[in-house]
Amino acid sequence: MPAGLAAPVPVTQVPKDEDFMEWYNEVVEVAELTDKRYPIKGMNIWRPYGQQIMNRIDAFTRSEMQRTGHDEVSFPLLIPERLFLKEAEQIKGFGGEVFWVTHAGHNELPEGERWVVRPTSECAMYEVFPLWIRSHSDLPLQTFQVCNVFRYETKQTRAFMRVREIHFFEDHSVFADEKSAREHVLLDLDIVENVFRKLALPSLKTKRPEWDRFPGAVDSIGADVVMPSGRTLQCATVHYYGTNFAKAYDMTYERDDGTYEHCHQTTYGMSERLVGAVVGCHGDDNGLILPPEIAPVQVVIVPILFKGEAERILEHCRRVRDLLAEEGFRVRLDERDRSAGEKYYHWELRGVPLRLEIGPKDIEKGSVFTARRDRPGKEGKKPLPLDGLPDALRALLDDIQESLRARQQAFVEERVRRVATLDEAKALLAQDSRLHVFEMPISGDEAARRVEQELDFKTLGVPVDAPADPEGRACAVTGEPATTMIRFARTY
Amino acid sequence: MPAGLAAPVPVTQVPKDEDFMEWYNEVVEVAELTDKRYPIKGMNIWRPYGQQIMNRIDAFTRSEMQRTGHDEVSFPLLIPERLFLKEAEQIKGFGGEVFWVTHAGHNELPEGERWVVRPTSECAMYEVFPLWIRSHSDLPLQTFQVCNVFRYETKQTRAFMRVREIHFFEDHSVFADEKSAREHVLLDLDIVENVFRKLALPSLKTKRPEWDRFPGAVDSIGADVVMPSGRTLQCATVHYYGTNFAKAYDMTYERDDGTYEHCHQTTYGMSERLVGAVVGCHGDDNGLILPPEIAPVQVVIVPILFKGEAERILEHCRRVRDLLAEEGFRVRLDERDRSAGEKYYHWELRGVPLRLEIGPKDIEKGSVFTARRDRPGKEGKKPLPLDGLPDALRALLDDIQESLRARQQAFVEERVRRVATLDEAKALLAQDSRLHVFEMPISGDEAARRVEQELDFKTLGVPVDAPADPEGRACAVTGEPATTMIRFARTY
Repeated sequence: MPAGLAAPVPVTQVPKDEDFMEWYNEVVEVAELTDKRYPIKGMNIWRPYGQQIMNRIDAFTRSEMQRTGHDEVSFPLLIPERLFLKEAEQIKGFGGEVFWVTHAGHNELPEGERWVVRPTSECAMYEVFPLWIRSHSDLPLQTFQVCNVFRYETKQTRAFMRVREIHFFEDHSVFADEKSAREHVLLDLDIVENVFRKLALPSLKTKRPEWDRFPGAVDSIGADVVMPSGRTLQCATVHYYGTNFAKAYDMTYERDDGTYEHCHQTTYGMSERLVGAVVGCHGDDNGLILPPEIAPVQVVIVPILFKGEAERILEHCRRVRDLLAEEGFRVRLDERDRSAGEKYYHWELRGVPLRLEIGPKDIEKGSVFTARRDRPGKEGKKPLPLDGLPDALRALLDDIQESLRARQQAFVEERVRRVATLDEAKALLAQDSRLHVFEMPISGDEAARRVEQELDFKTLGVPVDAPADPEGRACAVTGEPATTMIRFARTY
Repeated sequence: MPAGLAAPVPVTQVPKDEDFMEWYNEVVEVAELTDKRYPIKGMNIWRPYGQQIMNRIDAFTRSEMQRTGHDEVSFPLLIPERLFLKEAEQIKGFGGEVFWVTHAGHNELPEGERWVVRPTSECAMYEVFPLWIRSHSDLPLQTFQVCNVFRYETKQTRAFMRVREIHFFEDHSVFADEKSAREHVLLDLDIVENVFRKLALPSLKTKRPEWDRFPGAVDSIGADVVMPSGRTLQCATVHYYGTNFAKAYDMTYERDDGTYEHCHQTTYGMSERLVGAVVGCHGDDNGLILPPEIAPVQVVIVPILFKGEAERILEHCRRVRDLLAEEGFRVRLDERDRSAGEKYYHWELRGVPLRLEIGPKDIEKGSVFTARRDRPGKEGKKPLPLDGLPDALRALLDDIQESLRARQQAFVEERVRRVATLDEAKALLAQDSRLHVFEMPISGDEAARRVEQELDFKTLGVPVDAPADPEGRACAVTGEPATTMIRFARTY
């Protein structure tokens, strides 16, 4: 064994299993995804590695939007107060959470005006959409934008999971009638699923209860990730607005018979929380584990150098790198003047899915030695012949992607429990201190509120990805006939 | 000739030659690049077509940054007043031009704090860079970000050319010494040149006079485009900051001998003005003319449909489209239920470089009929055999790209005039009402100021892309020995 393979120091001071949040807070910084030392709380810096991951997710989302006929637009950041006040629910929902621009240069804005720094873009877009929509032939209008939104978060902030400047994706689409709008909600849910597949993350899709809908929405469906702590993280939402905003912003279209109808609208939002979910769900005590589909570097080559042979080995490694780059892999050869052990540590911390080690013996044998990031033990390591290497690596990366997904899927299945009564849920929490997501038959809002209070949980809502029919069961709280199954969780 | 080829109505109410600004203001909206009806002056909406053009420019800039070893980052939008006050020149330069966030939720920010909405990112970045730079081995630090910046513009705003929310690219790099920093300035100027080549725009590169440097810079080099009106538009700038900011933000590195040195910095900024320059320089009375390198659609196929044969012709057109798409062209087949004339008008307005017309006779002959957007007359139209079409189209697009550049180059050469005296410049302006850019031998700042006043021009500065040595000539104003050649222009 060459020098420098000493056991690396642990990456985080706290093991993930012991204190998930503490581990998370540390790993996002030591892996250089973000810098939290900017002097405004909750406004963090995207460092190059974090930025590359987010860019890859954005690029995939853009391609999905293009595939489904959405056009990218960009609306202004600042929204006059007058527009913000148009839709009553929005003010109720966001009024306490927005930043205000009041001054320009050395003076107040003219005429006592104030501008909201967008917390979301409904108010900006829907003032202008009516100018673009005249008749039925202008519909559907399918747009999206990628931007940052701002919320005056007063709770404790956490990188990617709860911040004040949020990297955001929003799809705003407009339809002639409820039917086409509701069909678009299903299309959006498919796209959400495709994005989550890239992240190797299964999600729970749940129709939110009335009191937790997006301000102004008729229906809100959340896609939540079950984090290692058992708490859920809402990462994407799809909404049907009905004609609520159309009425507030006078958004109508002319029908063939000359009459005017209000438009139906949908939106779909997704944020940098996706990065938080990837970090949190897949990582381990050695750092990140990135799904190959979004990893900025999929394969890192670490040369095992022996004195006198260094240049020959490096030359060989460069040829392997060039071959793999040509075959479309995102590959990096680590030529730095560091020990092999330091390099292992460096790239494990950054979650590179696959490491190739190449030393004199590998060259002799015409092979490379591979180490999977998702399986730290012996079973994740094996030699592969150079002959046919690209295909073998593609298969390995596919397997890593699928294994990460399957592992998270198994975890979700273990943590989401159908229980018959509130007491059963309590007993489960008492005997097993880990958190669970519960699904229970419920008879109405009051019963759901009781669950929230007694468990200190939140109502996620009615499952849309699992049977919601209570099938004649009794309500878990009241014993009366249940009307639907409801999902409850402790949330971030 | 099939029906529907009636002469289209003019695109703009004012011909470009008659009133450039009026034409420009109209064409950016009718070609659906932007919507200026958002209710805050100078904060415009990027419509899908404009967004696609900007995205293409951004993608190329990103690839240039990656090629030259720069890492993408994202810093927060909001900057605490305390940081903004650190560098005295910045406050002088931007103090009157920034927007302030003073309130969050229903209250003022705590402790009388105020946050600047970034007018540029120096103050945000340089507070954190010192945390990333310890020793010589952390240098150079080469970063860039793509973001929007905000200026409280009080003059008349113009889409892309002068707005309050500006789509912006900024490269911020840090070096150990002046030599490496100044070398990086040259690298940045090369990248500027590469970007401008994609836009088929030559630019004038000029070192700004002391009074027109970026606040805090030691040297500022501007890349200006000569617009059809003869006024220049500053589209990119490259700066050498020396140690000015490093001293304000305490940015040092440790040398091998244990002493600390202040870092040297450079920046390079570029904005959505590039889109304005493309629109303004290349367009004509039929609308935009887009350089193929950045055109969202490079080739549009318009089927010439005859009754009874429509489906057969469309099928053929679809095959041609698929072939070209496979070959990497950005191609669109216009299957809409409109007349061919309407389609010509639609795509000419949007500046698609190449139109293919395909009717029954073309199919018979095994050819397509091509029409270049940059040559409206007969000389821009010719048939091309289907056999070998991709290569022929590639050559045609290359020729369009080069012709646009050559046309603008010839225009610049005609408009930039070396004159010996201020009187000569005056005489030229008197006999020829069109604006010119003048280059004159100048003896000092006072003489330059005189030219500014008497011509109502601005000093662009010392040419860096043309001889600046006055070669013993007398100052154009004072008659004393000149120290350098200086460029003057009326600017936007």
